[in-house]
Amino acid sequence: MKEESIESLGEFGVIDRIASRARCLNKTSLVGIGDDCAVIACDGSTRRKVVTTDLLLEGIHFDLTYCPLRHLGYKAVAVNLSDVAAMNVRPQQITVSIGVSAKFSLKSIDELYEGIYAACERYGVDLVGGDTTSSLTGLTISITAIGDEESDRLSLRSGAKENDILCVSGDLGSAYMGLQLLEREKRVLKQSGSQTPDFGNYRYILQRQLRPEPRIDVVDFLREVDVVPTSMIDISDGLSSEVLHICKASGVGCRLYEEKIPIHEEAKRLAGELNINPIVAALNGGEDYELLFTIRQSDYEKFQSKVGPEIYAVGYITNAQKGTRLLTTGGDEAELKAQGWKMEVNV
Amino acid sequence: MKEESIESLGEFGVIDRIASRARCLNKTSLVGIGDDCAVIACDGSTRRKVVTTDLLLEGIHFDLTYCPLRHLGYKAVAVNLSDVAAMNVRPQQITVSIGVSAKFSLKSIDELYEGIYAACERYGVDLVGGDTTSSLTGLTISITAIGDEESDRLSLRSGAKENDILCVSGDLGSAYMGLQLLEREKRVLKQSGSQTPDFGNYRYILQRQLRPEPRIDVVDFLREVDVVPTSMIDISDGLSSEVLHICKASGVGCRLYEEKIPIHEEAKRLAGELNINPIVAALNGGEDYELLFTIRQSDYEKFQSKVGPEIYAVGYITNAQKGTRLLTTGGDEAELKAQGWKMEVNV
Repeated sequence: MKEESIESLGEFGVIDRIASRARCLNKTSLVGIGDDCAVIACDGSTRRKVVTTDLLLEGIHFDLTYCPLRHLGYKAVAVNLSDVAAMNVRPQQITVSIGVSAKFSLKSIDELYEGIYAACERYGVDLVGGDTTSSLTGLTISITAIGDEESDRLSLRSGAKENDILCVSGDLGSAYMGLQLLEREKRVLKQSGSQTPDFGNYRYILQRQLRPEPRIDVVDFLREVDVVPTSMIDISDGLSSEVLHICKASGVGCRLYEEKIPIHEEAKRLAGELNINPIVAALNGGEDYELLFTIRQSDYEKFQSKVGPEIYAVGYITNAQKGTRLLTTGGDEAELKAQGWKMEVNV
Repeated sequence: MKEESIESLGEFGVIDRIASRARCLNKTSLVGIGDDCAVIACDGSTRRKVVTTDLLLEGIHFDLTYCPLRHLGYKAVAVNLSDVAAMNVRPQQITVSIGVSAKFSLKSIDELYEGIYAACERYGVDLVGGDTTSSLTGLTISITAIGDEESDRLSLRSGAKENDILCVSGDLGSAYMGLQLLEREKRVLKQSGSQTPDFGNYRYILQRQLRPEPRIDVVDFLREVDVVPTSMIDISDGLSSEVLHICKASGVGCRLYEEKIPIHEEAKRLAGELNINPIVAALNGGEDYELLFTIRQSDYEKFQSKVGPEIYAVGYITNAQKGTRLLTTGGDEAELKAQGWKMEVNV
């Protein structure tokens, strides 16, 4: 029998292994490992704090060859705020820790923080703490984000019910196609020795990769139309993986319509050029940071009455026995698979 | 004129530079960068959340040649809990993010988490979230700790007043002497090729270096005797540096008595062997994770009436004009200097 290893378990396996021992003993610890954020109570208040954290490492999560530091700072904050938004909560505070190696100048740290502060200002978030240290190798960024909301407005992953409508905000697969574009240009630059990449008419997908925006506007809109999603998650690892997370946490099944999955024109165009199926990019590509959520059918009409961010119904929730299926444009049913993000262990 | 650089600014300079742009706009953000923790309010509650975060990098903060992973996990949690204790608050939750390179086996991750869970259990803290990722180089650990307390029991760095008594818990300089011992044994092992280090009769200082304990017991004792320190900080960078932090934040001066600084017998003994002045180890050594705090003179007798952890009066607060001075055993006055911890930039 092959021994268990980090590679054989994968990211989710390692997390499950760590989480299996975690117990919440303090009465303020309402939700622990397993959702987009932990949920923490405050005695005497009906409001809850939600907390999330991300660790970003050079060479794993970002490549400074094609990610300007300002964009990196912005993105590092944005992906954490997206996890707060995924609880249907507005973020209010972040802490930022950085480890920098000797190759970093003070100017490059300033650039990084330019981006961090730009994201804070855009989303009304306060930078309240952190840690600064030297590093032997490359740049390390660790961010923790905290949000604050009434307990009855929180959306966990676990509340989806049979017949709920499965919704996504924005469009999917663009960030992945943006990454393909960057990698193609990196190869071209290496071969040609040129300094100036040619991104052609692909500004949108490039922006989606380099500067994702957390969908706080969707959280605001849901409050405005008085809808609390029965479940919610942000799409960081691809639609398939996230739908399966909701179904597993909620103990339900689903039907997802391939034809309803929103894909941007530019993503389709580059996918055509590169011979990639854009649906696969949307299902497995990741890094879109859109919101996936379920709502009661009775809430759906509230969306129609108000102008707001684009929200698409892409499927519905079934009981668990019916499984988790994609209904293809060709009329077939395919089992949803969580490709998601794998630990890129460098062996 | 020499251009500003990371080396010339040092850790505190870089933090000041980052913090100078930080604004707290949300009304729940009560205290931002500059104390041991940020302080966050919850609407409708008199309780406060305090939040702190630390980033630990292999080769900078720990050396796996002489730090077993179990101890490292324990220590990584302990130093964060110490920051919460330094607000006079009991910690309740932590998140833990790790980046691991391919050289780490699943067994070594298990060992690390053994230590993390051991600290959680000892201090009644819940592990509620985190992030797990691969790394190109070595081990990265990022921990965020959260505590919860009534607002009128919090101790910031900024509340020290003239005539307050300056107190420290436990003893100082032991962790630094423990590190000297480890480094000596590492050199000896390298030279002799032996596998078994000889730590002789130095169990206490070794323990202080490898397995520091946050002084939650002091926080509990202060509650028991109904004392709220007027200011507080934990001693991570050496007594000098921390005294100066309190004086600067509070706008006061101080007199510190060299002869009152508590130093353990073992620390004195090894200091003698290695020809180190143990007072220098206490003033500048760091990593003791004891608490330094100021109390009103009228509160001092409350300490005498109850048996509790060792707390020593080491000096008193003056007005700012009188400066920050060490009164030496020989009867001299010396200016306190913050050697503290410097960014170990590898140039």
